[in-house]
Amino acid sequence: MGGSNAEKVASLSATTSAGAGAGPRLIMDAELRSRAQRVIPGGMYGHQAVANLPPHYPQFFVEGKGARIRDANGVEYIDLMCSYGPMVLGHRNPVVEQAVRRQMRRADCLNGPTEHMVRLAELLTQNVPHADWALFCKNGTDATTLCVTIARAATKRRKVMVARGAYHGWAAWCNPNTNGITEEERSNILYYEYNDLDSVIGLLAEHGADLAGIVASPMRHDIKKDLLPVDPEFARRLRTICDQLGAALILDDVRCAMRVDLRGSWEPIGVRPDLSAWSKAIANGYPIACVLGSDRFRDAASSVYATGSFWFAAVPMVAALATIEEATRIDAIEMMRVAGQRLRDGLASQARSHGLAVTLSGTPQLPFMTFAGDGQLTKSYLWADECVKRGVYLHPFHNWFLSAAHTAEDISRALDATDDAFGVVVKQFGRD
Amino acid sequence: MGGSNAEKVASLSATTSAGAGAGPRLIMDAELRSRAQRVIPGGMYGHQAVANLPPHYPQFFVEGKGARIRDANGVEYIDLMCSYGPMVLGHRNPVVEQAVRRQMRRADCLNGPTEHMVRLAELLTQNVPHADWALFCKNGTDATTLCVTIARAATKRRKVMVARGAYHGWAAWCNPNTNGITEEERSNILYYEYNDLDSVIGLLAEHGADLAGIVASPMRHDIKKDLLPVDPEFARRLRTICDQLGAALILDDVRCAMRVDLRGSWEPIGVRPDLSAWSKAIANGYPIACVLGSDRFRDAASSVYATGSFWFAAVPMVAALATIEEATRIDAIEMMRVAGQRLRDGLASQARSHGLAVTLSGTPQLPFMTFAGDGQLTKSYLWADECVKRGVYLHPFHNWFLSAAHTAEDISRALDATDDAFGVVVKQFGRD
Repeated sequence: MGGSNAEKVASLSATTSAGAGAGPRLIMDAELRSRAQRVIPGGMYGHQAVANLPPHYPQFFVEGKGARIRDANGVEYIDLMCSYGPMVLGHRNPVVEQAVRRQMRRADCLNGPTEHMVRLAELLTQNVPHADWALFCKNGTDATTLCVTIARAATKRRKVMVARGAYHGWAAWCNPNTNGITEEERSNILYYEYNDLDSVIGLLAEHGADLAGIVASPMRHDIKKDLLPVDPEFARRLRTICDQLGAALILDDVRCAMRVDLRGSWEPIGVRPDLSAWSKAIANGYPIACVLGSDRFRDAASSVYATGSFWFAAVPMVAALATIEEATRIDAIEMMRVAGQRLRDGLASQARSHGLAVTLSGTPQLPFMTFAGDGQLTKSYLWADECVKRGVYLHPFHNWFLSAAHTAEDISRALDATDDAFGVVVKQFGRD
Repeated sequence: MGGSNAEKVASLSATTSAGAGAGPRLIMDAELRSRAQRVIPGGMYGHQAVANLPPHYPQFFVEGKGARIRDANGVEYIDLMCSYGPMVLGHRNPVVEQAVRRQMRRADCLNGPTEHMVRLAELLTQNVPHADWALFCKNGTDATTLCVTIARAATKRRKVMVARGAYHGWAAWCNPNTNGITEEERSNILYYEYNDLDSVIGLLAEHGADLAGIVASPMRHDIKKDLLPVDPEFARRLRTICDQLGAALILDDVRCAMRVDLRGSWEPIGVRPDLSAWSKAIANGYPIACVLGSDRFRDAASSVYATGSFWFAAVPMVAALATIEEATRIDAIEMMRVAGQRLRDGLASQARSHGLAVTLSGTPQLPFMTFAGDGQLTKSYLWADECVKRGVYLHPFHNWFLSAAHTAEDISRALDATDDAFGVVVKQFGRD
């Protein structure tokens, strides 16, 4: 991605007139960070804080269109993070935006839902084989927490197994950071090792009779690790164990849903959960999350109380309907697979030619790359920073996300940058 | 509000062309309920479920404009619930909608926040005297839970006092329904009685040394009870107790914020919390919540982990900026106060003339009404149902909400309906 910043600014969208006005302000990100430092603890927080990222990562953005984003300094990037998942059709997808604009002329947040809530529940239960019903909420954390709550309500039991190191949100039961969380709030959480059946079975002797559910991600996608596909036999045994004990098998599909399989991310291996949590990509960036469940858990789902001021708003539901329908129509998953495979093949070939040993993990739609023997992520940080400097936004320790808006040309331009970035890594650390 | 349903449909908005097409479908709500029953547990859930409301309450809606809403059957209402709080300027306020449309042409959900997050944090910390910083999230429950988590992180203590019967969200620590929630998750929650200092002091002997914080609503607004203003002396003593013990005073301003005082709902009584939770009305229906805090809790706020896929999206922040600026410009609180006082005076006078004893509680902006000796809410249910039948949407056991869009004409039309509804109550139950 060559060209000056000014050219980059001009290339993203000819329709933009608001904003910097007198041209790009290259100091805007620094100015905003300094202002943010005064009024936001730490200047920024959560998964989008860049304090722990390499120095060239921008903190603030102004625009997104398709597979391109622009930061507050006016610099354009090919976006390989897709807002950490949501933008499955690309930023400001015209089909979704049109449906949203149409709905906004009528209503969003009312004293009750619109028909679109019913239509969305109907569509999801039609598409997703394990699902007989849907509950909508706002955050991925809402959805995973609701799954756990419903499992406990259904079974009248307390214990919930989660994979050690897995991320399921920031609620007390699952927050990876225990500051401000009491031991008591997670005293009923048990930890197994992903894909390690013995670690699950080892917990059953003591806790099986009190087991409400087992939470699993469709694949292991813990930060700072290579992604690991689920062992289908492991998933099948989790299903059997839950059936035998009357516990709920809970699939946290927040990150993978809509990228692996529109029917749910374990449908390709034929393992159906009792409850699954969806969010991120289901409405192409509009805020909505969802619990899907089977009839066995319907009464329990009715018996728990969960709600939010904005949960029944129409616009995100309309966006979800449009996103799912459009993703189906264009076969978005196949488009992401093709683009992601092109990226993956290109990275593998570039690394080889630079004499660097890398591991490409995940799926083409949710890829990740690490350098061999790079436990401290020193090479990853340098490489990712060099990519960002060259207009490709990806992440040194979190998996990346493709969208259906990534064209062959986008990937090709991204690969120009990654190749140069590999060169910088070789220059600093030598060949493997 | 006279006229046939067809006239009602026509009156809401001449610009609407989508929807029923061949005219109102009076069976739409019933049809949607029946479809929802199959794909949503209980057919609907949360605070907007009408299963426990009188028979004429519609479940599904199609449109909102200003102080009017229309249900799925095409029937129009004067909206005295304002989506349970969010619509503080009225549905589809033109100023907010214009700001939103402008932002939507650039971006919403990106790999990081936009400058609007900084601007909103700056505006809130300028407006709200106790606030030195802001954290944004999505649900009111996110905000109250974050307050509790920050208080515990700051104090390294576990116990949190909440008023018995108060609603602070659906998280495990505060959910009014304990189905699916373990005892351990709320083992560090202590209960005091609102406005009863002795009930607070009584807990201190045993738990004072482990007290992380005290949570209070700006007024008691528990369901099925008359609203109760805070005793300023009670609030001041909570402040003193927290100062003496090094605990956090947490104000749950989710429901009252932006209706009582733009500086925070306890500013009129001069009691400043350490942490306050805001949501509902701050963005006129767009999904956002916020924690405001003082410098003493800044490091603790940086030390906890909380995030969400949609938390840093630009559109709700732009909507919040526009809402707060517009509410300030037009003095929305005074407009709501005037409209609410008109409603309150009218209801009091009507009840008197019908020979009915009622209690009007809350503030004009957040009013509520109960009938004397109506512990089972029998009269309230009948009266509210008769209001709904006459095109006025209010609630039999949850406080109501005014918006700045309620004109004298709206209130006058609402009072026509409430007067008739009082007549029906007298006919069925006689005068008091």
